[in-house]
Amino acid sequence: MYRLYASQATASLVVHWMLIELGVPFEVEMLDFDDRAQKSETYLKLNPDGVVPTLIVDGAPVRETGAILMLLAERHPEAGFAPPAGSRDRAEWLEWMVWLANGPMAAYRLWFYDGDLPGLDRAALQAKLESYWTKADARLAGRAFLVGDRATTADLQLAMLARWSRNMPRPATAWPNLKAYVDRMRARPGLKDVHAREGVTDWIND
Amino acid sequence: MYRLYASQATASLVVHWMLIELGVPFEVEMLDFDDRAQKSETYLKLNPDGVVPTLIVDGAPVRETGAILMLLAERHPEAGFAPPAGSRDRAEWLEWMVWLANGPMAAYRLWFYDGDLPGLDRAALQAKLESYWTKADARLAGRAFLVGDRATTADLQLAMLARWSRNMPRPATAWPNLKAYVDRMRARPGLKDVHAREGVTDWIND
Repeated sequence: MYRLYASQATASLVVHWMLIELGVPFEVEMLDFDDRAQKSETYLKLNPDGVVPTLIVDGAPVRETGAILMLLAERHPEAGFAPPAGSRDRAEWLEWMVWLANGPMAAYRLWFYDGDLPGLDRAALQAKLESYWTKADARLAGRAFLVGDRATTADLQLAMLARWSRNMPRPATAWPNLKAYVDRMRARPGLKDVHAREGVTDWIND
Repeated sequence: MYRLYASQATASLVVHWMLIELGVPFEVEMLDFDDRAQKSETYLKLNPDGVVPTLIVDGAPVRETGAILMLLAERHPEAGFAPPAGSRDRAEWLEWMVWLANGPMAAYRLWFYDGDLPGLDRAALQAKLESYWTKADARLAGRAFLVGDRATTADLQLAMLARWSRNMPRPATAWPNLKAYVDRMRARPGLKDVHAREGVTDWIND
């Protein structure tokens, strides 16, 4: 039994989504950010940074979105969310997973939570995020998925990140290959399900 | 035979270091950033972002520092640079690897290359980097390595990142556990060797 500490429509959504698609037993505790539940004494013992997601695996907390996704893929290889070690696609999968953490995830943190790093030129940051969409769009030309011929953890994460751009001047879906890709990802029952469970009502049907 | 595209004392150093410690055959092409060799037409075909490192593995380029390290650890399990899949330490190793990419690596990019994201409050960014040293220092209390009881890719990367702080107001070595840890890492022949090969002369003997 996995236990996920989450908050509505934040980075924890991709872990929640993957747990649903894996079909494994799990329970979710939704933290209310308005009450600063992620900064409670109890939660900080599990996640000293006071952020989500945290996934309890065999009784121990695991943090960092990409790490949780990679760990789940490794623990449930039959689901095919990571190319097997030694395969041709393995290197590309690792590369996209690290890129997502180092690029868009870090840039979005600046975009949404700029309180601790003030002063940033918002237009430049927007351009940086758009450069990531340009890169992903180029990758997706003629491809159904970022790596190989089936969805991996990188696709779940990219689809979630694409949603986060929905209110930006140029959302990810303004790029044609990304639009087609996002539409395919949005058709997955698992994404519809996690949005329903978290009470997310926009974007799925755009 | 691996082929590494690198530049002196940049993020490629940790890959260069790991290749030396692995004792595997490799060759290195040092790119001259002053000549903007990383933006040459030839190199951009290998690495469209025009950054280092790129490692050629079985004829194909692999990018993103953390991804290259994880791939090398997986291809050479006998060296023990990653805890084996299924082990207790595996989740922690994944977590630190993603944290390094998402946290300090991203913050350092802002620190050293702020041209495309101008305006950032430098003092706040410095405080952010210092918060990472505080976190790593707390982790290293009573521990020789970030994960388990031997050096992993996360330690090589953290030691390199510690060096990058050497000219900052409070370098990583101002934190006592980090100082002891960095001293242990600096004693590794592989780090001395890679510094000698890249012509890096400061920091090792501080």
